[in-house]
Amino acid sequence: MSTIRITGIRTIDLRFPTSRFHIGSDAVNKDPDYSAAYCILETDSNFEGHGLTFTLGRGTDLCVQAVEYLSRFVVGRTLESIQLDMASFCRDLIGDTQFRWLGPEKGVVHLAAAALINAVWDLWAKVEGKPVWLLLADMTPEQIVSLIDFRYIDDALSPAEALEILKRNEPTKADRVAKLRANGLQAYTTSAGWFGFSDEKIKRLCQEGLRDGWTHFKLKVGGDAADDLRRGKLVRAEIGWENKLMVDANQKWGVLEAIERTTALKELDPWWMEEPTSPDDILGHARIRKESGVRIATGEHCHSKVMFKQLLQAGSIDVCQIDSCRVAGVNENLAIILMAAKFGVPVCPHAGGVGLCEYVQHLSAFDYLWASATLENRVVEYVDHLHEHFLTPVRIERGRYMLPEAAGYSIEIKPESLAEFAFPNGQAWLEEAKAAETRA
Amino acid sequence: MSTIRITGIRTIDLRFPTSRFHIGSDAVNKDPDYSAAYCILETDSNFEGHGLTFTLGRGTDLCVQAVEYLSRFVVGRTLESIQLDMASFCRDLIGDTQFRWLGPEKGVVHLAAAALINAVWDLWAKVEGKPVWLLLADMTPEQIVSLIDFRYIDDALSPAEALEILKRNEPTKADRVAKLRANGLQAYTTSAGWFGFSDEKIKRLCQEGLRDGWTHFKLKVGGDAADDLRRGKLVRAEIGWENKLMVDANQKWGVLEAIERTTALKELDPWWMEEPTSPDDILGHARIRKESGVRIATGEHCHSKVMFKQLLQAGSIDVCQIDSCRVAGVNENLAIILMAAKFGVPVCPHAGGVGLCEYVQHLSAFDYLWASATLENRVVEYVDHLHEHFLTPVRIERGRYMLPEAAGYSIEIKPESLAEFAFPNGQAWLEEAKAAETRA
Repeated sequence: MSTIRITGIRTIDLRFPTSRFHIGSDAVNKDPDYSAAYCILETDSNFEGHGLTFTLGRGTDLCVQAVEYLSRFVVGRTLESIQLDMASFCRDLIGDTQFRWLGPEKGVVHLAAAALINAVWDLWAKVEGKPVWLLLADMTPEQIVSLIDFRYIDDALSPAEALEILKRNEPTKADRVAKLRANGLQAYTTSAGWFGFSDEKIKRLCQEGLRDGWTHFKLKVGGDAADDLRRGKLVRAEIGWENKLMVDANQKWGVLEAIERTTALKELDPWWMEEPTSPDDILGHARIRKESGVRIATGEHCHSKVMFKQLLQAGSIDVCQIDSCRVAGVNENLAIILMAAKFGVPVCPHAGGVGLCEYVQHLSAFDYLWASATLENRVVEYVDHLHEHFLTPVRIERGRYMLPEAAGYSIEIKPESLAEFAFPNGQAWLEEAKAAETRA
Repeated sequence: MSTIRITGIRTIDLRFPTSRFHIGSDAVNKDPDYSAAYCILETDSNFEGHGLTFTLGRGTDLCVQAVEYLSRFVVGRTLESIQLDMASFCRDLIGDTQFRWLGPEKGVVHLAAAALINAVWDLWAKVEGKPVWLLLADMTPEQIVSLIDFRYIDDALSPAEALEILKRNEPTKADRVAKLRANGLQAYTTSAGWFGFSDEKIKRLCQEGLRDGWTHFKLKVGGDAADDLRRGKLVRAEIGWENKLMVDANQKWGVLEAIERTTALKELDPWWMEEPTSPDDILGHARIRKESGVRIATGEHCHSKVMFKQLLQAGSIDVCQIDSCRVAGVNENLAIILMAAKFGVPVCPHAGGVGLCEYVQHLSAFDYLWASATLENRVVEYVDHLHEHFLTPVRIERGRYMLPEAAGYSIEIKPESLAEFAFPNGQAWLEEAKAAETRA
């Protein structure tokens, strides 16, 4: 326990002008400027806690403002007082009696809660001198259970059931820690298959990916049906049938259309179909899964543990795509990972954007060490951009995440990047504005 | 069609210090300051369109900011260009490629969309010289279908099915318009049963309610189990067993606890149990309904038509409690009302707060005229406060909403109230600040 006190917060509206290069383009998100509401918890020591919530550009200011509001539940507290009952801390943060009307537990206010809760984890891990995944690895089962707010999920996973899972995995954990350190986590690449990329670029990126040791490739679909199939065949021609191909429609279709379109893509032998319809449509996903016979993945827009609970209960998904900052940070994700383990559904985190890869490696490690105790059918998304801005960027070797040993949550961005990409007055944005003026 | 052009927008962060009087207090929302992100669409004519989204105080500024951002989809357009394809207009508003990440279709950004879309309806109705309910009543079935974005719901309700419902009801509609004008809509009162009220106050308000002709009373529950039952018996002693009593837990419980607590309240013969658990728990509500055998109501926190679709598909609810501004305004509500009609579930709108009663009378009229064509088991919530701030407040007679004939959506607030309760610089808030200073 630490007597360090959190004394203040700094926030930054951080935006990268990625839309200029069609990076991150898909059937729905056509022009993302990968962005973040970034926060720094200041303390009465030399330690700082960094956290961010990922956004797509416009509206990041709303998340920043919500982070500033919610910081009243953080600033002034000792780290120890949070550590002693972190479930209650999280519940206070998401339960503000007036603010919760704006959610509850969804959208802007929940994204903001994620930034703050993750920043507390970054601080905690730095104070302990461990990466977050190891901090979690070294806890007792009881400590881990105490991190979780079981409200609204105890019909699917009770504290006793969670404890049982954790205790069952404890004796073999040290062995998995050693394996994890030696071999890392299997990754897959989304960098080759963005919507806005030309055929030539896709082919080249597939070839480069194979050379670099990648075995799992994701392609964005949801355009014209014939063109989706054509682009899929293009990728298959490059990567062969022994490698895995996943397709991602980014919520483009209604349920009936999704069944039709997913079925039409079966000849590509997709390992999964991702986000075929509205992220809120639990029953729709279950129907698409049943009627298409294709493995279904979703989660990056799934806004809370209550929604994940139902995706699992309804048999909607074969792949549980947790997101590190759409739900309320580490704690809510631990609940989701343990539920997925109980239902036997593999966790394959959503990543990319800015900072999501850095975050999720810690969560997948928790899944392997404490929850599922297996790496089978588990892959972590990887997208190769913006890592250069991080103090301790992810380390990828032959298509695998090699786990960090540096203390913290790996999310700290270099001060010069924070300055350059601050919106709207950082140098990068001043130059964007000038360029726009010249074009006009 | 109207060539009037929308030329600008004014927004107001409007907050009423209702928490001082325990008005609106329940098991979860303990201290609401009824508030609104309020907007005024200015035009190149004498007409203005007023709209608001309801909030509970803190965070209203986020909604105001989101309204200002989304106004780019409204300002500069002619009313005609919106009227010609309103479904596309709504879809643009909720589909901004960067902003939608903050939802999608939920929370702050969706609340903001509601304010704007409702303001367009207010403008449209004022230009036509009709109240919104009559504007809708005078449309053709085809026009009404064109107002609805069927994306993500066509597996439950196709445009053809919607058209069929509307056409089936068209021949008898004039008769219902006459009945509606003569008799209004059955209301129920929540004013008697707030959480923070003393026994004496509850008793007095029940007696007053009976005198004023009320037959349906709602009580807030979700406190100590024995106390809930005691307060319920208190109300029953006043209103007898021939009047209806509804209970409302405001999301207090998990699924298992909700089953237990709902069952324990059966001896009160509740007409419905409202919000027994998380508003996102579709499968949880279905289970509570099945295992308790009590009629289940929810919807005021249900954030989109996709969620309502599933509540209907899963057999989760006996009562569909639409909210006029949590989903994206009139248009999304028409979709929900038509789905409810198809599934045979009565629509009993959530109201209260500020402006919600003024709004929902129009939507219930649409339900009766075009969708369900019946008033059976349909009641509209009524709470008796803040109506004095409206230019054309709701008119309640012997427990019934008497429909407005004034043009517009009944939501326009008096200029002097807008000035007095603007946060933080209106006179009411300057006085609050001074009073707080004196107390300190």
